[in-house]
Amino acid sequence: MNQQVFNYVAVPTQYVEVEGIRYAYRSLGKPGKVPVVCLQHFTGTLDNWDPVIVDGLATERPVILIDNTGVGNSGGQTPDNVLDMSRDAIKVISALGIQKCDLLGFSLGGFLAQAMTSLKPELFRKLIIVGAAPQGAKALHSFPQLVEKAFALPPKEQYLFVFATKSENSRAKIAATLERLYIRTDDRDQSATMDAIKAQISALTRWGTDPVTIDLSKITQPVLIVQGSDDEMMDSAASLDMYKKLPHAVLIYYPDAAHGSFNQYPELFVEQANSFLNKFD
Amino acid sequence: MNQQVFNYVAVPTQYVEVEGIRYAYRSLGKPGKVPVVCLQHFTGTLDNWDPVIVDGLATERPVILIDNTGVGNSGGQTPDNVLDMSRDAIKVISALGIQKCDLLGFSLGGFLAQAMTSLKPELFRKLIIVGAAPQGAKALHSFPQLVEKAFALPPKEQYLFVFATKSENSRAKIAATLERLYIRTDDRDQSATMDAIKAQISALTRWGTDPVTIDLSKITQPVLIVQGSDDEMMDSAASLDMYKKLPHAVLIYYPDAAHGSFNQYPELFVEQANSFLNKFD
Repeated sequence: MNQQVFNYVAVPTQYVEVEGIRYAYRSLGKPGKVPVVCLQHFTGTLDNWDPVIVDGLATERPVILIDNTGVGNSGGQTPDNVLDMSRDAIKVISALGIQKCDLLGFSLGGFLAQAMTSLKPELFRKLIIVGAAPQGAKALHSFPQLVEKAFALPPKEQYLFVFATKSENSRAKIAATLERLYIRTDDRDQSATMDAIKAQISALTRWGTDPVTIDLSKITQPVLIVQGSDDEMMDSAASLDMYKKLPHAVLIYYPDAAHGSFNQYPELFVEQANSFLNKFD
Repeated sequence: MNQQVFNYVAVPTQYVEVEGIRYAYRSLGKPGKVPVVCLQHFTGTLDNWDPVIVDGLATERPVILIDNTGVGNSGGQTPDNVLDMSRDAIKVISALGIQKCDLLGFSLGGFLAQAMTSLKPELFRKLIIVGAAPQGAKALHSFPQLVEKAFALPPKEQYLFVFATKSENSRAKIAATLERLYIRTDDRDQSATMDAIKAQISALTRWGTDPVTIDLSKITQPVLIVQGSDDEMMDSAASLDMYKKLPHAVLIYYPDAAHGSFNQYPELFVEQANSFLNKFD
């Protein structure tokens, strides 16, 4: 397994400073087209992106992956809410000299994609939102309990609990993703600290409990929403709610898949994402 | 407009005889792969397939389009129920010497795809079901009233009423589809007769009102379900119901689209359909 050679696992971590804070990022891919900026899930760092997906997107466009404030090798203190995280991520994108980009937001990163586009619409061309939910999503009210349950498990089981369904097929595919996250051995990112984790738990929970402030009907960018059939954390149906509110969205559900939908079908996702980013408008 | 040259508009109609009935079909495409057999919507004939879609699929595989019993240039009397239509279509496929194929079923054709796979699972590899619903779908109870409303309109408005949303964007794209259906001038199919239309109205309505006999959870083939955000005829949510029952389905919703979802986004559909047929399993 994993005999395939991936570019992403050898891309060096780079740094950019914004207001005295040093942010970690990695960049690769075919130049020329609009870059896609990737925003990671709860506790996730630059090492949590599946190299199949990153390399697949990078064959067609520049891909830039960032650690947000206080996460991985980025400095600063992780905000306890999505809007402040979004303001930080916008500053990082601007500091990188990007005037127009696409966003790929996974889970918490998918919340940021919604908020960032609402805050600064002119910066974003298209969005891909995977395993996420709109503001006010009820399933997030019990996010802290779910995290507690997950953190009680050994590492591999924790990963499978969050990202796979109970089926053997789903577990095997997500286990293969997990293996790919460790192909890279050098220049790895630091794991999320307890401070970052606490702040992110607050941000994720508040996305569900705080008043809704973002009007999704005003997001006119094309949006590709990807979700699994059985994502308990976000509630799969929340993606349909989000889809109905967005005026220009495509919604794709994958079968027998939980929160790690795009990790379970990485080749299919890459084709659909590249097609959406290249052609859909 | 329509400067593009399509192969499908020049493909001759062929005939195959089954139990004394002559069935019309057209065949084109790259040989080698599993063929996809296309099953048409209410009143639709061989001339109602968008050449963008047929040609797009045909770049990668053999495409075979058939007129079912009593429809277009096919002889015989149209059955008044989906199961008998499905038995006929299976006979035509077998008469063509096909031992394994994929199905692309649009609307009524999507009902047939479900029933045919249930009747003879070993004949079918993968299914694509566009703008359809599972047995028992409530929206179909008022199908005769919807047809009456549609038939009261002039031809172009009738087509837009059925396949487009009320938006200018959707109407313009579906109007472009309608134009492409008339690029072909020679060797056209006969329009559906009143007898065929009456039988199809019965079959469509009964799909919603008759007892559910097909167990979708037993259809183990990979299924790609495509639907528009606003298909009133089928009720867009019925595709989600169907998706949940099928163990191995991908569901895609297109934005601002009604019953003609794949006609409105033909290039995107072709990419997603080819990707699904080539790689997903």
